[in-house]
Amino acid sequence: MYKLYSMQRSGNSYKVRLALALLNAPYKAIEIDILRGESRTPDFLARNPSGQVPLLEIGEGRYLAESNAILWYVAGGTPLAPESRMDRAEALQWMFFEQHALEPNIGAAYFWLSLVRGGRELHAYSLEDWMERGYAALQVMENHLRTRDFFAAGQLTVADIALFGYTHVAHLCDYDLTSFPAVRAWLSRVEAAPGFVNMEWKPELVSGEDTGIAATM
Amino acid sequence: MYKLYSMQRSGNSYKVRLALALLNAPYKAIEIDILRGESRTPDFLARNPSGQVPLLEIGEGRYLAESNAILWYVAGGTPLAPESRMDRAEALQWMFFEQHALEPNIGAAYFWLSLVRGGRELHAYSLEDWMERGYAALQVMENHLRTRDFFAAGQLTVADIALFGYTHVAHLCDYDLTSFPAVRAWLSRVEAAPGFVNMEWKPELVSGEDTGIAATM
Repeated sequence: MYKLYSMQRSGNSYKVRLALALLNAPYKAIEIDILRGESRTPDFLARNPSGQVPLLEIGEGRYLAESNAILWYVAGGTPLAPESRMDRAEALQWMFFEQHALEPNIGAAYFWLSLVRGGRELHAYSLEDWMERGYAALQVMENHLRTRDFFAAGQLTVADIALFGYTHVAHLCDYDLTSFPAVRAWLSRVEAAPGFVNMEWKPELVSGEDTGIAATM
Repeated sequence: MYKLYSMQRSGNSYKVRLALALLNAPYKAIEIDILRGESRTPDFLARNPSGQVPLLEIGEGRYLAESNAILWYVAGGTPLAPESRMDRAEALQWMFFEQHALEPNIGAAYFWLSLVRGGRELHAYSLEDWMERGYAALQVMENHLRTRDFFAAGQLTVADIALFGYTHVAHLCDYDLTSFPAVRAWLSRVEAAPGFVNMEWKPELVSGEDTGIAATM
């Protein structure tokens, strides 16, 4: 059985929990609160030198990091993985897009505005960039979804799960999705998938002092 | 035959050219100078709504974007692609790491310091972050390479090519690799691969005005 090191309120961690839920795959969850430095202990760093969650233990001492790589691994051979070479490449295209165009902006805004007390003031200088680039990413998604139900292979795949992780919390960190109807319809389609689970966390702000964490998680 | 839309001085474009060279795969190259707005024309945007290079035309009207997704596609079934499910996942892990930990920092610094006139002053407020996070990424790579020749599967794979793209220009944009001997040795190993080609560009700064480009490419 998989062992998943994750944080309840992390969008990247949620992606993996969502995929495992949709696949009805059993796993043991271990909560790592990065806001309390739990991803920076010698013990955790020995498992993942990047000091990040999620982290999947696949077998005794074999670990896999990076949410989207974990998605790819757990979905292998299941209906969440595209079959053809071209469909797989297109799914990966959107997963890489997620990691450089969406997560560093909406993920960062979510983290500092929704999770960390004083985060808005601490990162005021970055907020404008996050908003502008986050909206640009949402526009690319909107254009793609205008004529499609899902991102790749004409079906729900790991690409949708990757993009859902932070898009579904965008409204919690200043983004207004009113002018993105195709994105909103897609969010509802993902939520309607059999086995879907919510991220579920209590909106309680944590002090950002001494967490020693980078700008995103 | 593939048709590759790329920019000579772009690290992301270079990754694909390097992979195709190592694979000895023929392709037609079309130069798109994003610094002159050539990725923002209606023609190009119809091919790639993200307005980014590299872009691979696989067949009539079928396009693939995102450098690392293109690497995955062109390397499929070749020695540059890992074979086992776990090795593939580990290669992807490093490719996702590249897109969120390395490229947004070293890639951004390279772009604004090495390609755009006045870029250093324009992005002075971001430079400190880029340096700090870029060095953190290099340290993760250094630790991994201390006991390994390549990033995944014990051999040269697309993960190495992805990471090579911007690591090999880090010295051009303020990063000092002196204290990263394992990274330097790995750079030399990649450069020694049969078929290796250089990025090759004339270090001529271009004005950043009116390019309409985002912070990274």
